[in-house]
Amino acid sequence: MSRKEDARTPAAVEELSITETGIGGSALYRLRHFTGPPGTLSPVEFPREIPFIPRRYFLIYDVPANAIRGEHAHRQCHQFLVCVRGSCCVSIDDALNKHEIVLERPDLGLYVPPMIWGAQYNYSKDAMLLVLASTHYDPTEYVQSYDEFRSLMQR
Amino acid sequence: MSRKEDARTPAAVEELSITETGIGGSALYRLRHFTGPPGTLSPVEFPREIPFIPRRYFLIYDVPANAIRGEHAHRQCHQFLVCVRGSCCVSIDDALNKHEIVLERPDLGLYVPPMIWGAQYNYSKDAMLLVLASTHYDPTEYVQSYDEFRSLMQR
Repeated sequence: MSRKEDARTPAAVEELSITETGIGGSALYRLRHFTGPPGTLSPVEFPREIPFIPRRYFLIYDVPANAIRGEHAHRQCHQFLVCVRGSCCVSIDDALNKHEIVLERPDLGLYVPPMIWGAQYNYSKDAMLLVLASTHYDPTEYVQSYDEFRSLMQR
Repeated sequence: MSRKEDARTPAAVEELSITETGIGGSALYRLRHFTGPPGTLSPVEFPREIPFIPRRYFLIYDVPANAIRGEHAHRQCHQFLVCVRGSCCVSIDDALNKHEIVLERPDLGLYVPPMIWGAQYNYSKDAMLLVLASTHYDPTEYVQSYDEFRSLMQR
């Protein structure tokens, strides 16, 4: 049995599939995964699969079940969200339509381009959200008010 | 209470600390983390904290306890390893010295530059390893034989 993660012959391969959500260019990615000895590997390549190059990542965890995170839009930052353990809900809103997505597996990712209003909630007790972002942290890049977001989108 | 992950005032902040392992430029990163309402956030920025820009990430999980993964070196690829749940052991070897590290928390990362022989083992049942990599997958970029690695390092 091969023990190399990339040189091995996996027992099962799932190919990447991308489903547009209909909200401002955002899309749900069912990621490639290779299941076979030993274990499962789920890879993503930037920018040929996800349309940006990460300059930052962050992990969010130990979030109380009743908490809401996010509630902002980004002027420039592209993000890719994966719930690597447990589950959480993500809402995305382009000021005309709103969509809710449950992230509940490590091979399911949500691509969120700039100027989408997003929130995350219903974190399970063990949930951990991995976010890859195209920019360094810059507080001036956030739109923190929904009224401002809506007026920017109406221009 | 603020519910914004970046605009909030955290209850506790841990700053980044970097400890060289002594093996070929590799280093252990105790990542920044912000603990406070609601939840914990642990961010990393590339290349100003970790000295490369990711072009790929992969998650490894469901690894049997007796399995050994890795057992190769990369000619060009830089990697950053974080065990986001559970724990695993990582060995790093520069052909002169070998070091073993236990990754067991989501704010602890191991930076591995090219030409380090690495292996991962003793995965806990729930372990999930996040690997950020500076290159796309390229099988020709791997050194798969320890003898070849040692002779390359002796040049």
